[in-house]
Amino acid sequence: MTRKRLLVDGGAGVKVPVVEVALSNGETLRLYDTAGPEREPGRDLPPMRAGWIAERGDVEPVSARPVAARDDGRAAARLSAPRAHQTPDDPGIRGTGPRETAQTPATAPTPATAPTPDTAPTPATEPMGAVVGARPVWRARAGAAVTQLAYARRGEITNEMRFVATREGVDPDFVRSEVAAGRAIIPANVNHPESEPMIIGRRFLVKVNANIGNSAVRASIDEEVEKLTWATRWGADTVMDLSTGPDIHTTRERVIRNSPVPVGTVPLYQALEKVDGRPAELTWAIYRDTIIEQCQQGVDYFTVHAGVRAAHVGLTARRVTGIVSRGGSIMAAWCRAHGQENFLYTHFDELCQIMAAYDVSFSLGDGLRPGSVADANDEAQFAELATLGELTTRARAHGVQVMVEGPGHVPLDRIQHNVELQARLCDDAPFYTLGPLTTDIAPGYDHITSAIGAAMIGWLGTAMLCYVTPKEHLGLPDRDDVKEGMIAYKIAAHAADLAKGHPGARDRDDALSRARFDFRWEDQFELSLDPDRARELHDRSLPAPAAKTAHFCSMCGPRFCSMKISHDLRDLASVDGTGPDPSAPAGPAAGPSVPVDLATTGPSAPANAAPGPSVPVEITTPGR
Amino acid sequence: MTRKRLLVDGGAGVKVPVVEVALSNGETLRLYDTAGPEREPGRDLPPMRAGWIAERGDVEPVSARPVAARDDGRAAARLSAPRAHQTPDDPGIRGTGPRETAQTPATAPTPATAPTPDTAPTPATEPMGAVVGARPVWRARAGAAVTQLAYARRGEITNEMRFVATREGVDPDFVRSEVAAGRAIIPANVNHPESEPMIIGRRFLVKVNANIGNSAVRASIDEEVEKLTWATRWGADTVMDLSTGPDIHTTRERVIRNSPVPVGTVPLYQALEKVDGRPAELTWAIYRDTIIEQCQQGVDYFTVHAGVRAAHVGLTARRVTGIVSRGGSIMAAWCRAHGQENFLYTHFDELCQIMAAYDVSFSLGDGLRPGSVADANDEAQFAELATLGELTTRARAHGVQVMVEGPGHVPLDRIQHNVELQARLCDDAPFYTLGPLTTDIAPGYDHITSAIGAAMIGWLGTAMLCYVTPKEHLGLPDRDDVKEGMIAYKIAAHAADLAKGHPGARDRDDALSRARFDFRWEDQFELSLDPDRARELHDRSLPAPAAKTAHFCSMCGPRFCSMKISHDLRDLASVDGTGPDPSAPAGPAAGPSVPVDLATTGPSAPANAAPGPSVPVEITTPGR
Repeated sequence: MTRKRLLVDGGAGVKVPVVEVALSNGETLRLYDTAGPEREPGRDLPPMRAGWIAERGDVEPVSARPVAARDDGRAAARLSAPRAHQTPDDPGIRGTGPRETAQTPATAPTPATAPTPDTAPTPATEPMGAVVGARPVWRARAGAAVTQLAYARRGEITNEMRFVATREGVDPDFVRSEVAAGRAIIPANVNHPESEPMIIGRRFLVKVNANIGNSAVRASIDEEVEKLTWATRWGADTVMDLSTGPDIHTTRERVIRNSPVPVGTVPLYQALEKVDGRPAELTWAIYRDTIIEQCQQGVDYFTVHAGVRAAHVGLTARRVTGIVSRGGSIMAAWCRAHGQENFLYTHFDELCQIMAAYDVSFSLGDGLRPGSVADANDEAQFAELATLGELTTRARAHGVQVMVEGPGHVPLDRIQHNVELQARLCDDAPFYTLGPLTTDIAPGYDHITSAIGAAMIGWLGTAMLCYVTPKEHLGLPDRDDVKEGMIAYKIAAHAADLAKGHPGARDRDDALSRARFDFRWEDQFELSLDPDRARELHDRSLPAPAAKTAHFCSMCGPRFCSMKISHDLRDLASVDGTGPDPSAPAGPAAGPSVPVDLATTGPSAPANAAPGPSVPVEITTPGR
Repeated sequence: MTRKRLLVDGGAGVKVPVVEVALSNGETLRLYDTAGPEREPGRDLPPMRAGWIAERGDVEPVSARPVAARDDGRAAARLSAPRAHQTPDDPGIRGTGPRETAQTPATAPTPATAPTPDTAPTPATEPMGAVVGARPVWRARAGAAVTQLAYARRGEITNEMRFVATREGVDPDFVRSEVAAGRAIIPANVNHPESEPMIIGRRFLVKVNANIGNSAVRASIDEEVEKLTWATRWGADTVMDLSTGPDIHTTRERVIRNSPVPVGTVPLYQALEKVDGRPAELTWAIYRDTIIEQCQQGVDYFTVHAGVRAAHVGLTARRVTGIVSRGGSIMAAWCRAHGQENFLYTHFDELCQIMAAYDVSFSLGDGLRPGSVADANDEAQFAELATLGELTTRARAHGVQVMVEGPGHVPLDRIQHNVELQARLCDDAPFYTLGPLTTDIAPGYDHITSAIGAAMIGWLGTAMLCYVTPKEHLGLPDRDDVKEGMIAYKIAAHAADLAKGHPGARDRDDALSRARFDFRWEDQFELSLDPDRARELHDRSLPAPAAKTAHFCSMCGPRFCSMKISHDLRDLASVDGTGPDPSAPAGPAAGPSVPVDLATTGPSAPANAAPGPSVPVEITTPGR
């Protein structure tokens, strides 16, 4: 067996990475790959999409917002200052660089296909400044609509769509039509050219997000970049940098420049750091400054807690676990302190205009998600979901791509309702859920309590699953936790893909099962989600090299191996003629001869599988 | 917090163990306990049920079948003998002890409420011999029907039923009626008085079985007894001793005498050892001798692969993974070798008569279960299931309790069909499934691939889940694997109980979530499925004792703790009067004010919850 990364042709010069596993029997299997190109020590990833973005001719370089010391939110620096925080007008926030020039119009671009709603505030001037390092910063030209949604609506198939189509094994125009309908998104900030495009939508493979990021009590930039690389090695389709500790800007910069997958953030965390962690002192100006900073860095999607309306806060009063979303609790505290509506809600259109100019997607945050099974599917949760539906419509009107976040903690019997309600209220925008955890009683094992819910909700149509690690509720995940969380969620996502009948999803299972039945141990390991673990567990009992070709393992030993007996049985049948009648039905594909209904059933209306003609993985048999 | 084992009154002098957790806020929570009484070094568990069994007056001591060297299937001893195996007539098998005396009639008891089918063979003489050690061996008196099913049908509420009712928090007559209907079983061999009764049925808490047992390449009696104790410490409701290696009889003896939970076996494994691992040399006589040996030792349920009919074998010919059940493959090989019907099928009534005399329950084995998602729900699987339905009826006619085993490897969308079909074909006999694994691609993590399927199938009505450890497909589980498998399955079973709406199931979740919201860290740990792990993961980041009372953890740090902010918000609301309107709806129980349907939905007809009036766990608040 060998395993190598290949680039396959996606048309129009697009090259798409796959991992090809060559098996000991001469077959090969191609696997979806998220690890990105090989890293060169000390260098950022190559800007693969830079040419695609430039060729479209609809973005232009802007002098970037200058980086301020405050952007890194260093607690020590902040605490030593005479004032607890500064306003956005202070040079400390805005820097002393040149103000915006005529090169870039002060107004955000008008979406090409949708009118700006009446409620949209007049776009304010964006702060401008020096270019960050040597990296150019791009933004839409005046009047240009540069989001994948805008292209899709205009009928344009972008290279990003071609890339995605090849990865998913579907037709590029199918990708375009799903994006145009808002049923799928391709998070792809023009300032993150290092990313390899991927798609989030219920008719595509279920995706997994890995959260990384430091906190005030655990922090190291290198550690976070290593977690990123580690997470994508184990299959993370996106990562969210949820840093809340020191060096927040610099950590994010290193993460984005080294990430082959889209990067999401919760800009509110950085904004709060800028006001010393005092929710009441947050302002739209500070938040706005923060999102421009992050748009220009290359963040691909923002979690925005605009659905936590002031009127919803009281609905959480009698909950067992109150508000468990950090962003939700911050905005609730702000609303209470000011007696005003959530400023993210009131400034939502301006937010859309800024994000549209960089093609940053929304991940509409569920700030009131339940934090315990007791609070699942309650009024607060669904009141917010209705607001998220309204915001979905508004964001799409600005040409901004939207997905919607979901719970949380939900018992199995209440999961389907979440999926159906979200699809209805949010017009089929992709659903992106945290788990859900199906019980509260297993801290230390919440990757498992939630993988159960994740598999179920993925099957029912959730497009992306946010992983949960064993440390959930207990501490910040380290490298090992990241891996445990990733594997549990790749399992959940794949179980969902199988259940959805996604074309080609079963090829890997079948290849592994054939290897298992043939006692091709090394092939079995290599086809595993975690070859290292599979090999290690096998070798703990039978470390000898000969055991890798043995027709048994330590589980049953040679005498009781059912597969060995099965083989003997088939050998016997082929020799003595007592074998199965060749006219007998051919197993799974054949109709039943017993009086039972073989039709599979399940919860009503599972998600549709992609109708594309080709498949994302394929078995090639030598000589055919 | 303290945690102690209490005995609570179950009526009629029955004392039922519970674990009471005393929380730091003065509340207590009572938990179902499977760990059994504290072990005294070097001593077997006390025979708690001995008095109950004797009092009924329907069993009598028999001179037990003598133990032969061959019973331990020692490979070395066997291989040194001039002949590969001996026939049952050889002294080596039967021993030289006295033959059956007049004390015990040669015929098996006639079931009280059902006629012996015409097809029943004339019961043969059972081999008798010396008492095993000092332990008396019991069997039904002539004409007595001593199974819990027989008592239930006669309207008798046994102490076993009282014990179970208290554990489950339901009315004893509800237990009786479910057992009488065959919808639940209480595995309770009269020769296993050490066991604490438990019930397996879809209207009760979902149970978990842990497999232990050695194989030819890994073996130690002490290790297996330690695995048993370890498994019950983590919540195993039954254990199966699947030993196939040396010392098979002695290992089982130590396991049963030390097990506070019912013990299951697959007698075929020992029978095969008696014929040197050659399936074709198996005979009914050898198998019959083996089950009598095990009935007299105290095994509570037997997996019997009587449903693998000769005609089914050919249906597996084109499967990806053939036959993956050891028992299934052994019987298929036997059928092929002899060109005859499965001897377990043809001697099924005699088997029932023997098992009825000791109240050993059937676990009708699914010898043709799918071993890969490719083979799920195929003709072979369902043909066997139809046969298991027929055998369920026959066993019940003999008064024998029956549960039915299920798959295996099944993708999520095909699980519901398995449950519905089993219920229909097997007249609602309890379903007992292995997982199912929802994908084949994660060896090393099959406790997770299968916990997903187990939670789903448990919700839909499966009564007991057979755990799968991380070593599945790779090797024999060790102590750590046993724990990982147990925790994953306790999660799955509990997630199912929550989804079924089992009364009281959510109390532990709610208590833990309240502790979480109140930052009562020690309470949170103590209420966890694995307090050690929860504490350890927390302490890896924040080891200082003060962190146990801190109002945050390392996950978010003090500044971003949503729960802390939630508390601040509630404090603010109560002080300044801006709090929630006291007339506002009280959360989950209240009706929605948003235009959405709050009704939870799910796959059709999840299992009914127990209608009993009391609950198995309860919160007691001091002063009330």
